Amino acid sequence: MPHINVPEGLPGIRGLMAFSPETAAPLNQLAETLLRSDTSTLSRGDRELIATYVSYLNDCFFCQNAHGGIAQHYLACDMAFIDNVKGSYQQAPISDKLKSLLSIAASVQKGGKSVTSAQIEQAKGYGATEKEIHDTVLIAAAFCMYNRYVDGLATWANPDRDYYIKRGPQRAEEGYVGFDLYK
Amino acid sequence: MPHINVPEGLPGIRGLMAFSPETAAPLNQLAETLLRSDTSTLSRGDRELIATYVSYLNDCFFCQNAHGGIAQHYLACDMAFIDNVKGSYQQAPISDKLKSLLSIAASVQKGGKSVTSAQIEQAKGYGATEKEIHDTVLIAAAFCMYNRYVDGLATWANPDRDYYIKRGPQRAEEGYVGFDLYK
Repeated sequence: MPHINVPEGLPGIRGLMAFSPETAAPLNQLAETLLRSDTSTLSRGDRELIATYVSYLNDCFFCQNAHGGIAQHYLACDMAFIDNVKGSYQQAPISDKLKSLLSIAASVQKGGKSVTSAQIEQAKGYGATEKEIHDTVLIAAAFCMYNRYVDGLATWANPDRDYYIKRGPQRAEEGYVGFDLYK
Repeated sequence: MPHINVPEGLPGIRGLMAFSPETAAPLNQLAETLLRSDTSTLSRGDRELIATYVSYLNDCFFCQNAHGGIAQHYLACDMAFIDNVKGSYQQAPISDKLKSLLSIAASVQKGGKSVTSAQIEQAKGYGATEKEIHDTVLIAAAFCMYNRYVDGLATWANPDRDYYIKRGPQRAEEGYVGFDLYK
């Protein structure tokens, strides 16, 4: 049971957004900018994958499945691919550049000071730009917030992982701003 | 040295805001809403104190001093009071309600699932409303993001703690939106 009274039938962060629309506005705008803005040269799929991986490290069921479903849509892959990245991204069929960014994201999840200059140099060596490194760090940091918000208030999440995969295309289409919380 | 090229002379998150104005906008709007909105019934001083305490737990020098300076201004206290709250808030001369909220914030810092129903019940027993519990969780979660953003990119911070205390009144006056990064 959630720690506060959120509307029934609104899982995860959606219930919190209904409870507190005032904070929902900048939280949604941040997600829209981080995960969908065309000024980032990281693909939307790769950005959702970073968000999914950090949410997995934070053990946030709702976020890792909601964003995993969106990543799966963008990357046109299956759930096994997403789970492979979560469990052992170093062995996954993804670029060395993305592996180096996921390594940075994993360090951010532990704490800001865990990121090393060697990790940054490695990412640059694989072609990551400073903007891409910036975006990776901020996506990872932001999901350390979203995950704590969702689980810190003990929100309910649909346990059926297929539910999130079915919803992925809708969220990819609608984005994170101005969508109907109840749909 | 910061991991990315931020303008010189802009410490902490201010350099990152100059590097990435697009993400700065929602980050600043979130801080403005969380820490200054009149819809919260927690005082601005108490909200800044929660932010300071979480930043201390995350060992983020810039954030704990920047927000400590603002808290000190609002609460009309000295640095020893702020440091006492950081190190042993249970013994500090603050209300039982605020202690129970700081306890929740400390759990959020560890991870969302660390917050217990007993902590929530204790806070409610001391008079905390659901909105105040919500705001506490989101402030704590948000500073788990800001702290990681600031330290994950290895930004520079002025080591002189008095610098932040002198700046507290200015930030309290100007707020978090639309201020001049270079002043």
